[in-house]
Amino acid sequence: MSNTLVTVLAGGVGAARMLSGIIQVVEPAGVTALVNVGDDLELHGLSISPDLDTITYTLAGEINPETGWGLNGESWQAMDTVKRYGGISWFGLGDRDLGTHLYRTQRYREGANLATITAEITAGWGLALKLIPVTNDRLRTMVTLDGDGPDDGLEVSFQEYFVQRRHGVPVKALRFDGASLTSPAPGVLDALAAAHRVVIAPSNPVVSIDPVLAVPGVRDALIARRADTVAVSPIVAGAALKGPADRLLKELGHEATVVGIARWYAPLAATLVIDEADAGLAGAVAAEGIRPVVAPTVMRTPELAAALARTVLDA
Amino acid sequence: MSNTLVTVLAGGVGAARMLSGIIQVVEPAGVTALVNVGDDLELHGLSISPDLDTITYTLAGEINPETGWGLNGESWQAMDTVKRYGGISWFGLGDRDLGTHLYRTQRYREGANLATITAEITAGWGLALKLIPVTNDRLRTMVTLDGDGPDDGLEVSFQEYFVQRRHGVPVKALRFDGASLTSPAPGVLDALAAAHRVVIAPSNPVVSIDPVLAVPGVRDALIARRADTVAVSPIVAGAALKGPADRLLKELGHEATVVGIARWYAPLAATLVIDEADAGLAGAVAAEGIRPVVAPTVMRTPELAAALARTVLDA
Repeated sequence: MSNTLVTVLAGGVGAARMLSGIIQVVEPAGVTALVNVGDDLELHGLSISPDLDTITYTLAGEINPETGWGLNGESWQAMDTVKRYGGISWFGLGDRDLGTHLYRTQRYREGANLATITAEITAGWGLALKLIPVTNDRLRTMVTLDGDGPDDGLEVSFQEYFVQRRHGVPVKALRFDGASLTSPAPGVLDALAAAHRVVIAPSNPVVSIDPVLAVPGVRDALIARRADTVAVSPIVAGAALKGPADRLLKELGHEATVVGIARWYAPLAATLVIDEADAGLAGAVAAEGIRPVVAPTVMRTPELAAALARTVLDA
Repeated sequence: MSNTLVTVLAGGVGAARMLSGIIQVVEPAGVTALVNVGDDLELHGLSISPDLDTITYTLAGEINPETGWGLNGESWQAMDTVKRYGGISWFGLGDRDLGTHLYRTQRYREGANLATITAEITAGWGLALKLIPVTNDRLRTMVTLDGDGPDDGLEVSFQEYFVQRRHGVPVKALRFDGASLTSPAPGVLDALAAAHRVVIAPSNPVVSIDPVLAVPGVRDALIARRADTVAVSPIVAGAALKGPADRLLKELGHEATVVGIARWYAPLAATLVIDEADAGLAGAVAAEGIRPVVAPTVMRTPELAAALARTVLDA
C-alpha cells in the first residue's frame, strides 16, 4: 500500500464508508479524518459524538449493518429501564454503545479533551488511521424549522431535528452555534497542509461538511489546497443515498443535483466525483468551474468502496 | 393490614429486607424510609444512589439475589465496552441498572431534586411506600484509611473504600462531607414526627445510619421520638451479617457486639431487637439503658422478614 497522506473531511455514514475504502488502498497510518462535531449532544448526562462513533464502529467492522449506526450485537436493557420511568427514549442508546459514552464522559470529567478521548477510543478498537474532531470546543448545529405547524420558526438541536423528528419536517435555516469561538483541534490544519490528497467525503454538505468548515481557519486551509482536493458528490441522480441532504439543499435554496453540489464545492475542490447515473450532467458540472470525474459512487460493498477510493486518490 | 404509620431509617441491603417485611404487615402507603445518601457517587458523569436503588430493586422483587445489589437478569455489555478503553470498571454497572442512573442524571440536569426523582423511580416500579433521601443536598461519607501501607491516612470516598478496596483495608476515621450544609428533604422531619413507630433498620450504624443522623435536625427529631423508636441490631453473635460493620465498629473504638450497638443507640431508641444468638447478652444490653427484645433477626426469607417486622412493630 502507498504511503500517500490523505486527509478527509468527514460526517458520519457516507464518510465512514469512504474511509473504509481509503484504508484499503493506502497505509491507514497516513489517513486523517477531520470529523464533524455539530451533531454532538448531551443526554442523560452523557457526552455523545455520533459522527465520530459511526466512523469508529464502521472501521472496526462492528457497525450495525441494518441501521448504519450503533453497534452490532446490541441489546437495549438500559433504554428499557429508562422507558419504565418515562424518560427520554427518542435517541436510542444500545448497551454496548453506552460504554463509549460512559468512557467519553468520564474522561471529559477528568479534564481530557475530545481529540485525546477520541484517540483513546479508536485505539481501543485497534484503528490505525487518525480520527480528529475538527474542534475540541463546543459547536452545535441548530436547525430552524419551517412549515405551517406550531413548530414554524422553532430552533432545535440537530438531533432533535434528525432523530426525534426523523428529519421529516421542513427546515428554513441552519446555524452553527458557538462556531466563531472555536479553534481547530491540534493537528487539523497540519493535516490539511501536509496531505497529498484532501477528500471531501460524500457526507451531507450542509449539516456535516459545513460545520467542519465553520471552525475558524479550516475553510481557508482547505481553499489553500483546492488543487489537490477531490469532493465526492453525496447526491446521486437528484437524491441523497441516505438522510435528508436532497431536501435540505432544496429547502435552503440550492439545487439538489450534482450541479448544485458542483456550485457548492467549486470554491473548495478542483475535482468532483459524480456517479455514472449523473454522467449526462458532467458538462454542467464543469461549467461550475470544477472538474467532473464520472465513477460508480454507491459503496454497497467493501470492493466498491476501495474502487471509489482509488478513483478519488488518482483523480 | 393495619394503617400504622412507620418511618424507617435506612441504609441499603439490611434496610431493604426490613422494609420488605414491614410492607407485608402494614399498609405500604403508611411506610416511609429515610434513606442514606452518603454512599452516593458520580461516575461516568452519572449520578448513582446505591442505597435508594438497593431498596427500590428489592421491594420491586427485582434485586439480584446472589449479590444483594443490582438487578436480576442483568447484562454487562456497557461495562465490557468501558473495559475495552481501559476505563473505570471497579464499580459494576449492569445494563438494566444503568437505565436508572441515566434517568436520574437526566432529571438532575432538568432541575429536579433527588426526592422528586426518587418518587418517579419508585413509581416506575409500582412501589406504594415512600422512599425519601434524607437530604436533597450533597452529603458524602469519606473514609480515612489506616494501616502500615502507602494508603495510611489517605481519605477516599465511601465507594472507593467499600467497592474498589472491597472494604478490606483498616479505617481510622469517617467524615460526612458537606453534612453541616444540608437540610432534611421535604417530609423527613414530618415522617419522624407523625410515625406511630420509628425503626432503625439493621443497617451499618457507622456508615449507613450515622450519615442520616448527620443531616441537621434529624438527630434531634429522632431523639424526640425515642420512646417509640425500635432499633434492630445489625450485629449478630459479634459479626455483621453482611459488610464491614463489625470491623468498622472495632476500628473506630466501639464494641462489635449487641452491647456496643446498645450503647450506640441508647440515646436514640427505647428498644433494641437482638438476635436469639445474643439472648445471653440481654442483661448487658438493658444495662446500657435500652430495652432488649430477643427475636430471630436474620431475614433469610420473606416470612422471617415479616415476622421480624411484627416483632418491631409490637415491641
